[in-house]
Amino acid sequence: VQPINSVAKEAEVFLKQCYLEQGLAEVFLPRWQEVKESIERTGTYEHTYDELAYGTKLSWRNSNRCLGRNFWRSLQLRDMRHLQTEEEIFQTLVEHIKFATNNGNLRSTITILNPHFNIRIWNSLMLRYAGYRQPDGSILGDPANVELTDQALNLGWLKESRTRFDVLPFIIQVGEENPKLFEIPPEIILEVPISHPRYQWFAELDLKWFALPAVSNMMLDMGGIQYPTPFNGFYMGAEIGGRNFSDTDRYNLLPIVAEKMGLDCSDNMTLWKDAALVEINLAVLHSYKLHGVRMLDHHTLSDSFMQFVDEEQQCDRQVYGDWRWLIPPLSSSTVPVYPLEFENRLLKPNYFYLPDPWE
Amino acid sequence: VQPINSVAKEAEVFLKQCYLEQGLAEVFLPRWQEVKESIERTGTYEHTYDELAYGTKLSWRNSNRCLGRNFWRSLQLRDMRHLQTEEEIFQTLVEHIKFATNNGNLRSTITILNPHFNIRIWNSLMLRYAGYRQPDGSILGDPANVELTDQALNLGWLKESRTRFDVLPFIIQVGEENPKLFEIPPEIILEVPISHPRYQWFAELDLKWFALPAVSNMMLDMGGIQYPTPFNGFYMGAEIGGRNFSDTDRYNLLPIVAEKMGLDCSDNMTLWKDAALVEINLAVLHSYKLHGVRMLDHHTLSDSFMQFVDEEQQCDRQVYGDWRWLIPPLSSSTVPVYPLEFENRLLKPNYFYLPDPWE
Ligand code: HEM
Ligand code: HEM
Repeated sequence: VQPINSVAKEAEVFLKQCYLEQGLAEVFLPRWQEVKESIERTGTYEHTYDELAYGTKLSWRNSNRCLGRNFWRSLQLRDMRHLQTEEEIFQTLVEHIKFATNNGNLRSTITILNPHFNIRIWNSLMLRYAGYRQPDGSILGDPANVELTDQALNLGWLKESRTRFDVLPFIIQVGEENPKLFEIPPEIILEVPISHPRYQWFAELDLKWFALPAVSNMMLDMGGIQYPTPFNGFYMGAEIGGRNFSDTDRYNLLPIVAEKMGLDCSDNMTLWKDAALVEINLAVLHSYKLHGVRMLDHHTLSDSFMQFVDEEQQCDRQVYGDWRWLIPPLSSSTVPVYPLEFENRLLKPNYFYLPDPWE
Repeated sequence: VQPINSVAKEAEVFLKQCYLEQGLAEVFLPRWQEVKESIERTGTYEHTYDELAYGTKLSWRNSNRCLGRNFWRSLQLRDMRHLQTEEEIFQTLVEHIKFATNNGNLRSTITILNPHFNIRIWNSLMLRYAGYRQPDGSILGDPANVELTDQALNLGWLKESRTRFDVLPFIIQVGEENPKLFEIPPEIILEVPISHPRYQWFAELDLKWFALPAVSNMMLDMGGIQYPTPFNGFYMGAEIGGRNFSDTDRYNLLPIVAEKMGLDCSDNMTLWKDAALVEINLAVLHSYKLHGVRMLDHHTLSDSFMQFVDEEQQCDRQVYGDWRWLIPPLSSSTVPVYPLEFENRLLKPNYFYLPDPWE
């Protein structure tokens, strides 16, 4: 996404909001003078650490699809604009994973990379399970990542024994260089084996998921500058139980779980999908709690979002939202967000998708 | 809703579509001549029976929020434009209920009333359970109908012993006359007592619902003419189980059912709402089937809707939709409609809400 306005215009608007919201109106004008001169001289400018720290939070607050926005003030910034090489970037991603995972007490964290080196992390999330195309046309692993897996294999990734849950290596590209592969040290990847509070057989399905949901294919568009910027929060259980495990084009586990539950899967009317969906979600919540990994269920997170809505209104700011993304994939009518209506207006600064680099 | 265009313009567009779609292009021009003259002479015109029959179906097909549109060709028309008095209208509503209920083998039916007499049925659905305000501020019955119940009571409705499931009388108004009350003969109201396939205690909750979902507060805007027009289809189970029984501002049964199921309702993480929601929905589907009352579950209805989408595309017509209404209130990500995107463009002819007449 290119800025609609000039860098100068975007910079001015951003800096004004940044300083005025923080009650630093007197700082704005001199800072804006300085930035304007820099843009006139060099075409660009550098954000201060504080501008980055506040701007990344603002961008989170502006993320219309995010149900976790009540926590927007808690985002922790890692300013890594000085890194240049693929190796350095890999190292800082490793550090990001360690810091953010925090032994399960997840911390919302963002790493800002240099905007001028054309740095690209090919992985859509830092942690992704491979999806291998099988000779019979089926997929072993996560079908969402078949293309990324193809790319990794093409780049020489070797995996002697394949499973449904092989964490893909980082693919990092700088400028026009060939992308490079980096295996993530397994010991820093916290994963949760999935069991069920009542169904003993559930653990035998041998499911697991990673603790840390860290988006790495979006860029931060802020004040006219576009940063490559991996960030993470923590999971809402239904993202895993409702979608990753249950979607027919993901792990597609509803039929297996429903069968194990003894439900009649030949008839929609038995609501076998609905019943299995609840139990998978329950298993996910139960397991993350059991292993001390931070996670919220969709009810509690929706309640927290309602608090955000309240607080924003108290600050005289309208809350924009993308309803379709804000309601959970199960029991949507039971959450307080369901009856709300949102205007889906796009504010900047914000996070934007990058196209898949292999396309 | 007033026509945006003149009656003549709306009439021309409607008649053209009506005759061309039916392969009767040669009929259009002479018919349009006739209608145009009538409009010039009198300001209005009369639809033929066939125009009404096709136009009501078209309006159904154009109902962006309706998941039942695959059945649009099956709508049965009752042309009741000649009726004038409240009593006559009441009688035809009784006949509508009988014909459409059909002992449980529900028929999608529409009754067209005269557009020029300012006929108004105050009930939002033909069948509605009263919601009585209690001295302690709580509601006995269906909270959705508190205002309608107030109106009925104000108009002299007498109900010696009140229950949670008292069918409200019709309130029918013609022109500037006072609205009149008509008790619906109980013997024509098919109701289904709710039981559960496994939980014996479910029947003891003493729940029931009516068989026939018949909307009576919308008007048909077609070819420049606005008809009062009650219509019905049959229920998708989740409308009752997912919303009417489960919404906190309706019968709010999730806590009771969850408690009976032995779930821990003090903690969102037990997913007690989700589990109870599935069982209430299962009970509804089970009970309607048991009593031979036509109903579809949300999975089967969504599949049927996908067929509609296919067929419309084969006819080179774009399907418009209101996604928010088209996904079910539970397990939305498991239905094939979930990943679709719709433009929510309003086509005429169509059904439009009327404001509550007491406001
Ligand atoms: C703190 C815990 C967080 C929770 C529980 C949370 C929750 C969610 C959920 C449930 C979604 C919808 C995901 C989906 O349906 O696939 C979402 C989307 C999103 N969130 Fe958050 N979030 C959190 C942190 C963050 C952070 C730290 C940021 C950025 C700084 C962020 C930015 C976004 C964005 C941009 C999206 C849309 C992603 C897309 O379009 O694919 N969230 N979040
Ligand atoms: C044949 C069986 C039918 C089924 C299963 C069906 C299903 C549905 C469902 C599930 C909804 C959403 C309701 C809600 O969320 O509250 C809906 C809405 C709607 N349906 Fe249908 N429908 C049927 C027949 C009809 C007929 C016969 C018509 C008109 C001729 C119609 C017109 C509409 C309209 C106008 C709405 C939107 C109502 C509103 O805005 O409140 N439907 N339908």
